[in-house]
Amino acid sequence: MELPDLTDFSRPLYDDRPTPWLEIDKQRLDRNLMTMQHKAERAGARLRPHVKTHKSIAIAQRQLALGAVGITVAKPEEAMVFIQGGVRDVMLAYPVVTPGTLAPLLALAAEHQARLTLIAASLMGVEAIATAAQAQPDCQLAVAIKVDVGLGRVGVQAESDDGLHLAASIAQHQLRFAGLVAHAGHAYGAENLSAITAIAAHEMQQLRLLQQRLATAGFNYCPLSVGATPTALGAPIAAATDELRPGNYALLDLTAFRLGLCDADALAMTVVARVVATNARYAILDAGSKALSSDRGPHGTNAVGFGLAVNATQGFWIEKLSEEHAFVPHQGAIPTLGSLMRIFPNHACAVMAQFDRAVLRDEDGQAEIIPIDARGKFC
Amino acid sequence: MELPDLTDFSRPLYDDRPTPWLEIDKQRLDRNLMTMQHKAERAGARLRPHVKTHKSIAIAQRQLALGAVGITVAKPEEAMVFIQGGVRDVMLAYPVVTPGTLAPLLALAAEHQARLTLIAASLMGVEAIATAAQAQPDCQLAVAIKVDVGLGRVGVQAESDDGLHLAASIAQHQLRFAGLVAHAGHAYGAENLSAITAIAAHEMQQLRLLQQRLATAGFNYCPLSVGATPTALGAPIAAATDELRPGNYALLDLTAFRLGLCDADALAMTVVARVVATNARYAILDAGSKALSSDRGPHGTNAVGFGLAVNATQGFWIEKLSEEHAFVPHQGAIPTLGSLMRIFPNHACAVMAQFDRAVLRDEDGQAEIIPIDARGKFC
Repeated sequence: MELPDLTDFSRPLYDDRPTPWLEIDKQRLDRNLMTMQHKAERAGARLRPHVKTHKSIAIAQRQLALGAVGITVAKPEEAMVFIQGGVRDVMLAYPVVTPGTLAPLLALAAEHQARLTLIAASLMGVEAIATAAQAQPDCQLAVAIKVDVGLGRVGVQAESDDGLHLAASIAQHQLRFAGLVAHAGHAYGAENLSAITAIAAHEMQQLRLLQQRLATAGFNYCPLSVGATPTALGAPIAAATDELRPGNYALLDLTAFRLGLCDADALAMTVVARVVATNARYAILDAGSKALSSDRGPHGTNAVGFGLAVNATQGFWIEKLSEEHAFVPHQGAIPTLGSLMRIFPNHACAVMAQFDRAVLRDEDGQAEIIPIDARGKFC
Repeated sequence: MELPDLTDFSRPLYDDRPTPWLEIDKQRLDRNLMTMQHKAERAGARLRPHVKTHKSIAIAQRQLALGAVGITVAKPEEAMVFIQGGVRDVMLAYPVVTPGTLAPLLALAAEHQARLTLIAASLMGVEAIATAAQAQPDCQLAVAIKVDVGLGRVGVQAESDDGLHLAASIAQHQLRFAGLVAHAGHAYGAENLSAITAIAAHEMQQLRLLQQRLATAGFNYCPLSVGATPTALGAPIAAATDELRPGNYALLDLTAFRLGLCDADALAMTVVARVVATNARYAILDAGSKALSSDRGPHGTNAVGFGLAVNATQGFWIEKLSEEHAFVPHQGAIPTLGSLMRIFPNHACAVMAQFDRAVLRDEDGQAEIIPIDARGKFC
């Protein structure tokens, strides 16, 4: 596979530390955060970033300071970490179907007066929320309906009556209705930006269809929330969009680069590893699947290789991983034993979830260590 | 892909908990530990299990209680966790090439009078160990030479003079020589048990070749240490083997099952997840790549799918993963929304590394929570 132009991949290494370490470029991170915030504002949409990407309270606080209205999280435990970290407006974008799974979160949210938006994709889900809410009457919560706009994962079909039944059930249980929520994750499998734009247009068409059907049934308040980095970065934001929930845009990765969503200079997260062995075919780096993950991309998209390893003069695709080793085929141009290489991963969210902390590096090369607070919080 | 006979995969679920949870079957774990201990003893070999599989002090202590002479670890930080957990004989089977990487470990080992065996595959590695050792003269350590027996990752070739040069350098630096170490990880790519047996025989032939060349050069004390679950379980233990270092054998997984190394009843580690959504094609479980990892097998072996999901009457291959969702194609036989399913993963080591704790389940269904102490310790 051909290498990209290495100009914006080849970056200075300011210090040496125990390897592998995860590094976030503060300037690039901030630029990514501001770009999305401005895009949302120009479109008149609220930004509610998905923090499953970075799992960091410090980064969530930067997003809120720039104007985000709240955050989106993937699991109840993840929500709890961020509420404990001071966030007061949280959407749990997960279809929980058992009240016991929600109970600790609702108790914590009530204690901290944090607003929760939950989602439901089944009557069982609405009932679980209703049961959990009854036990925590002080918790401010609302319930959105998840619409499947093509990923084939979770959500009602806009054309079916399921959404109407869910809205009726939400009303019947005296829960606040928070509108419609979608995630066009299938855009990660798109061939190019025009395919991504088509997916975004189809998503909005589906949401508006169900929104109109709900209005006909008497549900007039129905904001529309969408969120996926490919559509948020790679397509125009439709006028009817009330809220955007992208996650990966904060850090970006080779998947976003390959899709044409960003240039190499925007990639804000890397892993630095060391050449610990060399042989006739490979240089071996001390970051394996336990640091880089084996993820080739979101939702089963399949990159070739496991990342791009770069030093001052060379770049290599990582061919395979053991648990603690990366195999870099050097084709004779062997990187120096003991030297450091910077790895650009396929999927930033998967890599963040492996580490307990990150090196946040500013433009002068100064480093600050930040915890990856919600790592391992997947219940 | 055809399903296996589900008899030994379909197992009782004793309770309900926040999902997903990682469960280790105590009886099966103990049986696996004893089988390997007895096999090593019958062959006159010491057992030094690789704890990177389970990363658990409690399980390492079970292995030691059954007769293991010490443990093997993958990284210095991992070694430190187990020394702090009471283990006093540790092989660090990693080719560290910088003294600073070793310094904290050697200091801790000296403090706790723990014996260390380090490995080297380059002169730079020997020199790094020598420098670190000089700074910690109270640390009892020895250095083994890593031999590449076919994985193509780390180690000298038995036919080259590199091993002789390393042994001379070890002697010159007045370090204790600990013999030869190999890992036949390429056996995970073998077609069948006879191919695994051939790999084990070739490994031992390579090690004995270098052992004899070292003896000719005056290095008469040269124990042979090998370790990989496919060869340890799937091939006879050669008479010349002094030490065995398998890791995965403790828990096992679908990779071991597919290779014919064990039957389904031996699989000791599973993840329990819940059906949180269903659609026309998939049931969606609440365990994704952040819990199960995206690993399809060790060292880049490539299973089809991401594990086997089973309930009392059904079994399904997991087709793909999102970060927090598994996609189970149900072909019309839809598992009940809200119900639990037990997932057998492709690669137990990769899954253990995602969780902070495990449910250790005894044969009466009683559960104890054990920490996965060395999770995330990959520096």
